[in-house]
Amino acid sequence: MRAVVRRGPRLLVDDIPEAVAGEGQILTKVLCCGICGSDLHAVHSLEHTVEMGRRSGASDTIDPAQDLVMGHEFCAEVLESGPGTEGRFKAGTRVVSTPFAFGPQGGELIGFSTRFRGAYAERMVLTEALCLEVPNGIASETAALTEPLAVGLHAVNAAHLTDRSVALVVGCGPIGLAVIVALKRRGVGPVIAADFSPARRALAEKLGADVVLDPGAASPHEQWEAFDVPQTLASMGQAALSGRAIRDAVIFECVGVPGMLQSLIEQAPPTAHVVVVGACQEDDRILPVIAINKQLRFSFVFAYTPDEFAEVLHALGEGAIDGAPFLTGEVSLDDTPGAFERLGAPGADVKIMVQPWR
Amino acid sequence: MRAVVRRGPRLLVDDIPEAVAGEGQILTKVLCCGICGSDLHAVHSLEHTVEMGRRSGASDTIDPAQDLVMGHEFCAEVLESGPGTEGRFKAGTRVVSTPFAFGPQGGELIGFSTRFRGAYAERMVLTEALCLEVPNGIASETAALTEPLAVGLHAVNAAHLTDRSVALVVGCGPIGLAVIVALKRRGVGPVIAADFSPARRALAEKLGADVVLDPGAASPHEQWEAFDVPQTLASMGQAALSGRAIRDAVIFECVGVPGMLQSLIEQAPPTAHVVVVGACQEDDRILPVIAINKQLRFSFVFAYTPDEFAEVLHALGEGAIDGAPFLTGEVSLDDTPGAFERLGAPGADVKIMVQPWR
Repeated sequence: MRAVVRRGPRLLVDDIPEAVAGEGQILTKVLCCGICGSDLHAVHSLEHTVEMGRRSGASDTIDPAQDLVMGHEFCAEVLESGPGTEGRFKAGTRVVSTPFAFGPQGGELIGFSTRFRGAYAERMVLTEALCLEVPNGIASETAALTEPLAVGLHAVNAAHLTDRSVALVVGCGPIGLAVIVALKRRGVGPVIAADFSPARRALAEKLGADVVLDPGAASPHEQWEAFDVPQTLASMGQAALSGRAIRDAVIFECVGVPGMLQSLIEQAPPTAHVVVVGACQEDDRILPVIAINKQLRFSFVFAYTPDEFAEVLHALGEGAIDGAPFLTGEVSLDDTPGAFERLGAPGADVKIMVQPWR
Repeated sequence: MRAVVRRGPRLLVDDIPEAVAGEGQILTKVLCCGICGSDLHAVHSLEHTVEMGRRSGASDTIDPAQDLVMGHEFCAEVLESGPGTEGRFKAGTRVVSTPFAFGPQGGELIGFSTRFRGAYAERMVLTEALCLEVPNGIASETAALTEPLAVGLHAVNAAHLTDRSVALVVGCGPIGLAVIVALKRRGVGPVIAADFSPARRALAEKLGADVVLDPGAASPHEQWEAFDVPQTLASMGQAALSGRAIRDAVIFECVGVPGMLQSLIEQAPPTAHVVVVGACQEDDRILPVIAINKQLRFSFVFAYTPDEFAEVLHALGEGAIDGAPFLTGEVSLDDTPGAFERLGAPGADVKIMVQPWR
């Protein structure tokens, strides 16, 4: 069968061995799969991804010397159920799933595993127990948004928002936009969104951000005062002394490049909670004493729980989340390497869906 | 009156203008004042302290070109009450106070302010409204421990411990020991303490640490498994799948030197909460992606609330906290510069009390 393969530091389309459902697995036809920023990074820096995983206590599930088939934001159609399955899904049923699989070394991530191939291929195998049926006849491309939108919901859940929270979303790529969606569904506080790209700012606005800013023109941190968040230790002390109710700053870091954390440490208001969603892959420099003086908190978050994943799918099924603004392109397997290049230079794209049947 | 003065990058004993109680203030005779690590740092690096404060949004309350009288862990005897006071304290009453003061620029820290001189002096002024009477006739040196012990209580409160928490205290200087005291009073979970110094490890044990380790001989992180804290992502996943109750790692960073945070990022178990109490004053390097993969949390903490300060004083008064192990030396003003040098090379000392009346 055909697949997009990462071989050495480049992508190509090639024939790979047919997918075969093992114990507890189902064989599926891939309907679509979104391209994720972590896929872009892995093409060029797979050895680094593997090293970071190892130093994070994960099992070695990627052999960078072998072909890797990525793709973890998928929707698929059931072809047949393998041995030891419960027959939960008839052939033709459309499903999504968390991209988890279980091998001899424990849990693995589909699409970031040499053993468990991802969805940039005509067919793939999934664990029956993890699959969820696509509800209410929504488009497969919409269902495939469950994964990135669940990342946003998980980040918002980690923020432990209250009705005194004011949220700032720094970076309006797919993950920043997913955070905005989750914040607006939660209905808490004003949401301030910042991005250098006019196209992304327009999307942030469309998805409900209350204030949208170009950080090149004005610091998003200038907004805190307008929303009653004390900007300095002195103003915080004065507010506390006067018994005035003050609001809490929650900042979602959705950029993930070196320097962002220190920039937030310097500009965040005292006691701010920074939820770090953007995965900075490189060495970064911070000045801890400023974070101490301001009593900042940082929650580094990753992925989502199965419950969060299911909640997002349900919301998409009910029409409570509008996925349309995320869907900005569709490509065949042959055009996927070109789509990776397009996404490498940030523009108006959010999610490009790979459709292997095209 | 006589005082220890920081003038340029050195300490000396000199005559300074007499202290005079202003509006709402009381004039006191200093009975004793503990030497803090932040004082040691400020002697050599006051300009850096000022710059870090400014970049943290604090008001400029120190002019490094002028004499600075430090000392913020004090116990004092009331001499007379100034204008506009309520007469809460008779002459002869012993008091402690949070080292806060209120000037034209807002809140200032006594001992880190050119305007509000600290306790390394024969006399000092305090804000009457912030003073608390020393209870139950406890020793003044014990009462002066309220301040550093409140730092430990604040850190433990920021940890939001549950009965599933396992605590690791990294560094058993005065702050690490204060954290151990607060943890043991809370009565939650085993407390693991780590320090290179045998004398400090002995103190940690005396104050109730359940496991005491030399990080030069064995990594304190090897202890996690013994207390049912999953050490890797795979073991965490397996525990979750089996429905087994797992315990949460809470790490108190009480060292504050570059490299500590990245060392914890690499060695902490997944989902650990790191409470950063040690104030690293220099640039530090971290690898955010590992913190992301492990979903670590960091709470940077500073000082304490007035309630926490009062709670510790009360506990000392009731004998619920034994301050004796902290008190390792007493010096006159003349011997204070020498005591600073002694503390600069870590040994068996914890708190050296300056007694300006000696």
